[in-house]
Amino acid sequence: MAIEGLSDKVASLCVRRGFIFPNSEPYGQMSGLYDFGPLGVELKRRIEENYWKRFVRGRQDVVGLDGAILASPKVWEASGHVASFNDPLVDCLKCKSRFRADHLVEEELKISVDGLSQSHIAGLMEEHKIDCPKCKGDLTPIRVFNLMFKTQVGPVSDESSIAYLRPETAQLIFVDFKQVQNATRKNLPFGIAQIGKAFRNEISPRNFIFRLREFNQMELEYFVHPKKLNEIELPPYLAEKKAVFVTATEQEKKGKGHSMSFGQALEKKIIGTKIHAYWLAEFFDWLEGIGINKSKLRLRAHTKDELSHYSSETWDVEYEFPWGFKELMGIANRTDFDLREHSTHSGKDLSIFDEATKEKVTPFVIEPSIGLDRLFFTLLLDAYSEGESKEGSTVVLNLSPKVSPVQVSVFPLMKKDGLKEKAYEVFQTLLDHYAAEFDDAGSIGKRYARNDEVGTPYCVTIDYDSLKDSDVTIRERGSGTQIRVKEKDLVKTLGELLAGKLVFKKAGKVIRD
Amino acid sequence: MAIEGLSDKVASLCVRRGFIFPNSEPYGQMSGLYDFGPLGVELKRRIEENYWKRFVRGRQDVVGLDGAILASPKVWEASGHVASFNDPLVDCLKCKSRFRADHLVEEELKISVDGLSQSHIAGLMEEHKIDCPKCKGDLTPIRVFNLMFKTQVGPVSDESSIAYLRPETAQLIFVDFKQVQNATRKNLPFGIAQIGKAFRNEISPRNFIFRLREFNQMELEYFVHPKKLNEIELPPYLAEKKAVFVTATEQEKKGKGHSMSFGQALEKKIIGTKIHAYWLAEFFDWLEGIGINKSKLRLRAHTKDELSHYSSETWDVEYEFPWGFKELMGIANRTDFDLREHSTHSGKDLSIFDEATKEKVTPFVIEPSIGLDRLFFTLLLDAYSEGESKEGSTVVLNLSPKVSPVQVSVFPLMKKDGLKEKAYEVFQTLLDHYAAEFDDAGSIGKRYARNDEVGTPYCVTIDYDSLKDSDVTIRERGSGTQIRVKEKDLVKTLGELLAGKLVFKKAGKVIRD
Repeated sequence: MAIEGLSDKVASLCVRRGFIFPNSEPYGQMSGLYDFGPLGVELKRRIEENYWKRFVRGRQDVVGLDGAILASPKVWEASGHVASFNDPLVDCLKCKSRFRADHLVEEELKISVDGLSQSHIAGLMEEHKIDCPKCKGDLTPIRVFNLMFKTQVGPVSDESSIAYLRPETAQLIFVDFKQVQNATRKNLPFGIAQIGKAFRNEISPRNFIFRLREFNQMELEYFVHPKKLNEIELPPYLAEKKAVFVTATEQEKKGKGHSMSFGQALEKKIIGTKIHAYWLAEFFDWLEGIGINKSKLRLRAHTKDELSHYSSETWDVEYEFPWGFKELMGIANRTDFDLREHSTHSGKDLSIFDEATKEKVTPFVIEPSIGLDRLFFTLLLDAYSEGESKEGSTVVLNLSPKVSPVQVSVFPLMKKDGLKEKAYEVFQTLLDHYAAEFDDAGSIGKRYARNDEVGTPYCVTIDYDSLKDSDVTIRERGSGTQIRVKEKDLVKTLGELLAGKLVFKKAGKVIRD
Repeated sequence: MAIEGLSDKVASLCVRRGFIFPNSEPYGQMSGLYDFGPLGVELKRRIEENYWKRFVRGRQDVVGLDGAILASPKVWEASGHVASFNDPLVDCLKCKSRFRADHLVEEELKISVDGLSQSHIAGLMEEHKIDCPKCKGDLTPIRVFNLMFKTQVGPVSDESSIAYLRPETAQLIFVDFKQVQNATRKNLPFGIAQIGKAFRNEISPRNFIFRLREFNQMELEYFVHPKKLNEIELPPYLAEKKAVFVTATEQEKKGKGHSMSFGQALEKKIIGTKIHAYWLAEFFDWLEGIGINKSKLRLRAHTKDELSHYSSETWDVEYEFPWGFKELMGIANRTDFDLREHSTHSGKDLSIFDEATKEKVTPFVIEPSIGLDRLFFTLLLDAYSEGESKEGSTVVLNLSPKVSPVQVSVFPLMKKDGLKEKAYEVFQTLLDHYAAEFDDAGSIGKRYARNDEVGTPYCVTIDYDSLKDSDVTIRERGSGTQIRVKEKDLVKTLGELLAGKLVFKKAGKVIRD
C-alpha cells in the first residue's frame, strides 16, 4: 500500500536521524547539495562495499580504478560533453525566471518526456503555448545550457587553463584503458569499475537527493571483442531470472511491458546481445540481493530518439518512485565509440592486442552505470514502513542486513548492577565481526523503536538473567519477536541470521512473539 | 641504507604495476593530477578501511560524515580561506614565468622555509637577490594567489553564483556540527571523522603524488569541553610509547629533537594538553601499526610564526622523505575558533548544551588531519627494497598485510592435469576471507617476483603432491621461505599469519628456506 507523502517522510527521517543533511545548513543550503550524516555514511559505505566485493574483488575479470575529478578538458571535448552535454532552457521575458523546457512540458502536460528529442520538446512547447508558470509571461525559444562546472587550473586565468569537473566517471576509464591493460595484462573480456563523484550543474535539482548537482556514481565498463558479444553464456540462475521488459515498440503503444526471463528476452531478441543480457541480469540480481523490492523494478529500452550518440542499445532499470517509474540505473552498449574518439582526438592508438584471436582490436563496451545517491534514496523509500504499536505509530526501516548501517545494537536492560559493563563487553566482541552499536539511553522500548526506525535488524539485550545463565535476548526488527541464545553462540548465530542462513524463530528459544 | 633515486623508482613501479597513473595520459597529463590504478585503489581502500575501523566504527565517541565538495561560498568566507588561503607568487619580468617564492628560497638557499612567515620569505628573496631560475631575469615583488578553485553554480553567471571546490574537508564538519549532534545526541567529548577529496590550485605540484592539486584527506575533529582538555588520561600503552619530539625552542637552535615517551612529553609540558597528547599518540600508534618505520618519524611543533590563525598549538608528524623531513600529518588544537566564526558569520548559534556540566558551551577542537595520497606514497617509499636473486635484481615491497592490495595470491604449479581447477577452487575459498588473487601466467619464479614487487605477503601454490595429500605450499614474501600446510587449515593459518599472531616458520613444515 502506498504511503502518503512517502518521499517527505523519508527526507525528514534522513535529517532527524542523520542519514542526510542539507549542505551548509547554517548559511542556507545551496540547492542540489547534501551531506551524508553519520548513519548515511555507513549506509553508503556498505552499498559500496557490497558492490566492490561482488563486481571487483570477487571477480578475476574486473579491476578497480579511481580517477581524478579535474581531468584534462580535452577528455570532454573528445567525449562530446563540451559540445552537447546540454539542458534545454527557456527564460521568461517578463519575470526573468529560468526553467528547463523538458520539465515544463512534463508538469504542464502531465506526460513523461523520457524518450523525446529536444526538437520534439520544442514542438510541444509551441503547440500547447506553454508560458511562464510563475507569471504567465511569454517564454524565449529553447537555448542550450552546458551542464559541466567550469574552473581554471594553474596560476594563469585564460582559455588554456579551463578545466571541468567531470560530469561522469566513465570517461576516466576509457582514457586510462591502455594504462590499465598494460599494468594488469588482462585479456578480453575484462572490465574496469570505478566509484566516485561526478558533477552536473542542474538548473532544477529536485526530489531531495533524487537529482543532485554533486553525486556519486558506480560505473563499470566491460570490454569485449566486437565479434564476441554473443559468446558469454548466461548462467542458468541468471537466465531463469524474471523481470518486466518494456521494449521501444511497447512504449509507442503505451504498453506496460511483459514479464519474462532474461533467457526468453534473449531468445525473442528483445535484448540485442548475450553480454548485454548478462550484465542486465547480474545487476538486476544484485539490486534484488541488497533488498530492493523486485516487483517495483522494470527494464525499459531507450527509444531511438532517446539513445545517446554513443549507444547502440540502452536499458534502464527503473524503479517505481512515488513520482512514477524513473531510472535507477542504465546499462548501455557504448560500442567502440569512446575508445575510437579518444584514439582520434589524442592521436594515441587505444586498440589492444587480443591474445585469443591474435589481432588488434578496439573492444566494444557494455556499461552498467548507477547513481549511488539515487540507489541510497531508493533503498530508504523501499524499506520505509509504518505501523502501530502500544507506544503509538512506529516507523520500521526494512533494510537488508547487507546494507543496514547498524547490523546489531547492544543494550543493557539497566545501567546499574554490572549490566552496563557486561553489555559493553558483549558489544566489544560483536564489533570485531559486525557493524555494532551500543545504546544505554532511555527505556528499552524507546531503544527498540529508535533502532527499528534506522533499520537495525537485530537488538541484543543483557538483563539480570544474563548475569546468571549467560543467555542473552535477541530481538528481531519489525516482528518484535524475541529469542534467548547462549552468549557463547551469539557471534555465530548472528552471523547466520544476518546472512539469511538461519530463520529467526529457529535460532533460539522464543520468549516473546 | 638509502636507495638512490628511490622516489623515481617508486613512481615508475606505480605506473608499471598499476598503483598510480598520470591522469588523462593520452592527452598529456595536467600537472598535479593522478589516477589510482587497480592496485592503487585497493591499497587506498585498505588504508581507508583501517582508518575507519579504528577511528569511527570501532569507537563509540566518533561518528562519520561525508560532505559535499561544492559547499556554500559563505563557509569559506567564515573560515578565512577566501581572504587568506594564499601562496606567495613572483613573476619573471623577462621570461614571464611564474614561481612560488617559498620554493625559490628553499631551492636557491638550500634551507627549509617551514616555520617562516611570508614577510620573512620576502626578506630572504631581497637579501639574497634571488632572480629567475630560468633566465636570470628580475622578479616582481611577492603577490598573493588564492589556492581555491572557483566555479559557478546555477544557470546564471555572476557574483552570486560563485562557489569553490573545498580546499579541506574540515569545515564541512564544523558547519554540520549541530546537525550531527542533534541527530546522534552524542555528549562531549565526541568526534566527527571524514574521508574525502579536497582541491588546491598549487602553482607547482611536485614530487609525484607528494603535493597534488586534487587529493584525499582523512580529517577527524574531536570536540571537547574547553575546561576539560586535561581530563582524558592517556592509557598506559600510549603514555609509554616513545617518539622524537622537536620543540619550537629546539628549532631555533637547529636541534634534532629528543626521544621521549608521550607521558614524559606531557609531564615536561612539551605537549600542551592531555587530549592533544592522546590524539598524537593514537595516530602515531596507528601509523606504526599500518607498517610505517617508526625510526623515520618525528613530531615537530609549529613555531609561532608558522601557526595558523585558528590554532593555539600544532604538531606535525613528519616522515624522513628522500627530500628531507616533511609533514605526513598534522594534529592541531583549533580551539573554538571555527565554531565561533561560523556562529558569527551565519548568525546561528553553534554552541551546544553540555549534559555533564549543564551549561552551554562552544567546544574546543583537536584535529588529526592526514593527506591520504601522501600517506599512500609514504607507505610505498617506506616499503620499497631491492635485493639480488638468481634471476637478477629484485624488488620487494614490504607492505604490512594490513594494507597490502593483495594479501594472498594463489597459483597452480602448471595449468594442466587439474592443477588449475584445484588452485581456482582454493582461491575461491580464500576470497571469502582475504584480498586474494589468482595467477597462472608465466613461470612460478616470475609469479613470485611479480607478487614480491607489489607487496603480496603470502603466495599459495598447488602442485602435484597437493592433489594426493591435500597439502599446499605457502611462500613468504621477501625471505622466500616455503612451508607446507594442510589445505583444510589454510584459511585459519593465513588468518593468523596476516594478523601477526603466528610466526611463519612455525606455521607449517618448512620445505625451503
